[in-house]
Amino acid sequence: MDDFQAVLDEVMTAVLPVVGQGRVANYIPALAAVDPSRFGMALATLDGQVFGVGDWRTPFSVQSISKVFALALTLARDGDALWRRVGKEPSGNPFNSLVQLEYEQGVPRNPFINAGALVVTDRLLSLTGDSRGLLREFLREESGNASVDFDPVVAASEAEHGHRNSALAHFMASYGNIENPVPRVLEHYFWQCSLRMSCADLARACGFLARHGQGASGRRLLTRSQAKQVNAVMLTCGTYDAAGEFAYRVGLPCKSGVGGGIIAVIPNRCGLCVWSPGLDAHGNSVAGVEALDRFTTLTGLSVF
Amino acid sequence: MDDFQAVLDEVMTAVLPVVGQGRVANYIPALAAVDPSRFGMALATLDGQVFGVGDWRTPFSVQSISKVFALALTLARDGDALWRRVGKEPSGNPFNSLVQLEYEQGVPRNPFINAGALVVTDRLLSLTGDSRGLLREFLREESGNASVDFDPVVAASEAEHGHRNSALAHFMASYGNIENPVPRVLEHYFWQCSLRMSCADLARACGFLARHGQGASGRRLLTRSQAKQVNAVMLTCGTYDAAGEFAYRVGLPCKSGVGGGIIAVIPNRCGLCVWSPGLDAHGNSVAGVEALDRFTTLTGLSVF
Amino acid sequence: MDDFQAVLDEVMTAVLPVVGQGRVANYIPALAAVDPSRFGMALATLDGQVFGVGDWRTPFSVQSISKVFALALTLARDGDALWRRVGKEPSGNPFNSLVQLEYEQGVPRNPFINAGALVVTDRLLSLTGDSRGLLREFLREESGNASVDFDPVVAASEAEHGHRNSALAHFMASYGNIENPVPRVLEHYFWQCSLRMSCADLARACGFLARHGQGASGRRLLTRSQAKQVNAVMLTCGTYDAAGEFAYRVGLPCKSGVGGGIIAVIPNRCGLCVWSPGLDAHGNSVAGVEALDRFTTLTGLSVF
Amino acid sequence: MDDFQAVLDEVMTAVLPVVGQGRVANYIPALAAVDPSRFGMALATLDGQVFGVGDWRTPFSVQSISKVFALALTLARDGDALWRRVGKEPSGNPFNSLVQLEYEQGVPRNPFINAGALVVTDRLLSLTGDSRGLLREFLREESGNASVDFDPVVAASEAEHGHRNSALAHFMASYGNIENPVPRVLEHYFWQCSLRMSCADLARACGFLARHGQGASGRRLLTRSQAKQVNAVMLTCGTYDAAGEFAYRVGLPCKSGVGGGIIAVIPNRCGLCVWSPGLDAHGNSVAGVEALDRFTTLTGLSVF
Repeated sequence: MDDFQAVLDEVMTAVLPVVGQGRVANYIPALAAVDPSRFGMALATLDGQVFGVGDWRTPFSVQSISKVFALALTLARDGDALWRRVGKEPSGNPFNSLVQLEYEQGVPRNPFINAGALVVTDRLLSLTGDSRGLLREFLREESGNASVDFDPVVAASEAEHGHRNSALAHFMASYGNIENPVPRVLEHYFWQCSLRMSCADLARACGFLARHGQGASGRRLLTRSQAKQVNAVMLTCGTYDAAGEFAYRVGLPCKSGVGGGIIAVIPNRCGLCVWSPGLDAHGNSVAGVEALDRFTTLTGLSVF
Repeated sequence: MDDFQAVLDEVMTAVLPVVGQGRVANYIPALAAVDPSRFGMALATLDGQVFGVGDWRTPFSVQSISKVFALALTLARDGDALWRRVGKEPSGNPFNSLVQLEYEQGVPRNPFINAGALVVTDRLLSLTGDSRGLLREFLREESGNASVDFDPVVAASEAEHGHRNSALAHFMASYGNIENPVPRVLEHYFWQCSLRMSCADLARACGFLARHGQGASGRRLLTRSQAKQVNAVMLTCGTYDAAGEFAYRVGLPCKSGVGGGIIAVIPNRCGLCVWSPGLDAHGNSVAGVEALDRFTTLTGLSVF
Repeated sequence: MDDFQAVLDEVMTAVLPVVGQGRVANYIPALAAVDPSRFGMALATLDGQVFGVGDWRTPFSVQSISKVFALALTLARDGDALWRRVGKEPSGNPFNSLVQLEYEQGVPRNPFINAGALVVTDRLLSLTGDSRGLLREFLREESGNASVDFDPVVAASEAEHGHRNSALAHFMASYGNIENPVPRVLEHYFWQCSLRMSCADLARACGFLARHGQGASGRRLLTRSQAKQVNAVMLTCGTYDAAGEFAYRVGLPCKSGVGGGIIAVIPNRCGLCVWSPGLDAHGNSVAGVEALDRFTTLTGLSVF
Repeated sequence: MDDFQAVLDEVMTAVLPVVGQGRVANYIPALAAVDPSRFGMALATLDGQVFGVGDWRTPFSVQSISKVFALALTLARDGDALWRRVGKEPSGNPFNSLVQLEYEQGVPRNPFINAGALVVTDRLLSLTGDSRGLLREFLREESGNASVDFDPVVAASEAEHGHRNSALAHFMASYGNIENPVPRVLEHYFWQCSLRMSCADLARACGFLARHGQGASGRRLLTRSQAKQVNAVMLTCGTYDAAGEFAYRVGLPCKSGVGGGIIAVIPNRCGLCVWSPGLDAHGNSVAGVEALDRFTTLTGLSVF
């Protein structure tokens, strides 16, 4: 079971036929230009050893995967107080997002819908005066890759197409749930989305969640309870409106992004990352879901 | 870690101060009459050995916990076809239930909201011509208690206060998603809710989910994949609008009922049941949540 | 301006090209079988003189037009108390009907959406023990046509396809806003919808609203204020989700039905009825709307 | 009936007991500071003669009443094309505003909800490059008062508390239904709200709607059909979520503002304006509604 390289090879062989299926995100040009035939997968053990297949070393746009790291950085500083500003419950179908936000007085359902991530960013700005620099430093350290960085073209492009996120932020501000100037919160949020990392980088960077909160260098980043909180929110809310389907097909805490990446955490064992740009109707990587399904079936490593 | 009796004793001692907190369900007289100071907890190992504390042998009204067993019985016969009739995604806040049902054309979000349980019951009736007898037989066999039975007073009382469930069933019928006559579906649904079982009965009865689908007698009830599906739906949707909070406090597949019971599954290890009638604002047992939180903290047995 | 026969002739000539456009209601067979090329229009002066063109003497299924008469009968007996059970505000787009009903605790927005008409029927049953007989007698007297009657085939067909109305009634009953047994309320409601009347019958029957509450025989049916209330609700809520468009194209209190009929009231002047079965996307008769638009343009008779 | 001065005197006497009831709008300081015991009412005949009682010459913050004038200015230039950008149907309860906007793809229900007024402003900016200057000039001319002006303190205060309007504008922009930069649209919108006018000014300024589109100087401002459109939208959508209640109590096209003003149009007869700052739960002036109710009862001047 632990010959991870052999498992990854087998997964890739099985998954190749669906690589290229789905649609590449096209709401910003920078994402639309990605080659849909890419596929990579990486696994990082608790001690930082990394296995990989395919395009596992190619950086891609992490998009919403960054929400996990922003949450961790904020939770480490804010503790349970954060949960008064953002919920930790699944949000139902996306169509309801605004009415739920109204019904719950400007408090978003969880940190992985856009409204929730904006609140997390706002909170991190209030607590530290920054979010961009902190996040980059954190990811460089945890991934062991000092070249991890933002993509200014993507960030600018997000900002140009950012009316819906602006609407969410102003709406929450009308309830007093955004403390910093809306344009500043948005700017930091768009920088987060624009991060470029490879499967190898991300598999390592999420290792602290498999190590119950302990960072790559052994330093404690989150309490054991906080690490459990992040994993729980990933499992119940990490994959848009397909958390239930993920839970039963994959059965691991996961977080996906519209760049085609998905990270997964196997507590006590390893961090995983898979990437392939073709998305299903929920916005999750078609080949990525398939690969994680195969991986858990082959290894029996699932939380259920 | 495995001296389960000692763990249960410790949990009970810790939890006693909150027993009696919360409000007993009062929408039907039979539930309102329950003594709020009751507390019981039981654990059944994979081979059927049972440990317990407090009122662990006292039968109570299982209410929505029955939805797990109805789902298992139906899934065993219908397989993946069932998921075309009912979703497996969390439902967001309850306030949205009807608009979601409308938005999704009469297909409920998951089998653990009332609308979803009505569809499951309807499906079981179509497949077998029954649900009541099957369910009782199943629970007697899995719990090893031949006296498990329905409570006709509770069933009648549910029916009398059943306008909202009638509305849901007729609404789904208008979309063609209820096949049997609405009154018949409701009758069977209310019988399910009225089942009386003890913590010991329920801890044993959910053992097949810890055994990946294998029944008490060794017979296969669900495929491994189906057992995983049920556990996944329990974790993401089993505790009303508190699935996220449960995930991070308890971290186990759970299903609660307004009678004050909660079952929990620890895959590969055991089935659990806790009971105390005082409910929190979400409809979950106050002392029950606390007890499961303690239990997972003491034993480290959580999926995260 | 008062040569009404000439006006009706001119309207009919102008409207004929659009007769047959739109779709005939097809949710029940009895309605689907109607010939879409029919068109009739009638005008009844305050003293009961009737002018007509086309199929103005052919009975058709009045459907929701009956809601006006049920409202009048109930308001006459219940007075302002009725407005605690049903609102008098427009309802926004139909998609929201259920969530609004939930948000407003089972009190429907107005008497002309189905939920509101069910409440009116329920109230009339509570006040008089009847609704069917009363309504028929009322319409025979006001229309001067003793053969006005229900269509049992249509009533039975409505009942067969009545899941959505059952859902609404049970839902309101769960809030205590339906007092009689749901099946009885539905039965009476479906009878109302099944009434068959001609344009001539309906133009006369709505005359009491043009006479500020005074019936055909001179008897007072509603107070002046109540007649104004009914007219106001017709203008703001009488034509499904097209009240605004009606207000500016027609500018009269109107009520439409999916049988293709529309009644209109010109206070102090006359009652009008037009019929043509082809419906637009809102459920209003295509040729009927066009005819009323022409009529008000030609005569200058509009409230604005 | 036409001794308007006597009628106004009688209305004022009758209404005085409720003057001061209700709550003064307090979301911005400039409004909160208004004396709740003020009351004024004015009537302008078609030829510009003005009658008045109480504080009928005191300027107050017109707030949403300005939406009528912005609509008229835009409709005059855009014609029916405007109705592709904004609807003309009532909006149901305000709680649904956002979900309706989402359901209808960023097209607001009517020009008198904030979202609709933002679209109208945006359209006017696109068509003319201005809105502020045009509106002021228009109102000075129609009211015959060359000192009508904006209140920069109120405009600035609105902007400071404008997160919800920003959210609406960005949300519509995400659907492509706002063409100009959001901050510019908001700036113009807030200026409109800040206009200060007296009852006398407003009664005269809405005279063109009683004159079927003809301005004070005899110039045609709107076609007859457009004037009817504005009146119709006022009657069905002009008084927040109380259009139905207004229709049956007052029975006139009206538009209210949270400054406590209400204008009313009696086609072919006169323009009316009443002002008293205490608001009811819907945001309409308590004494204002009462006064209009009395006025129509005394004069019989109502459209029904």
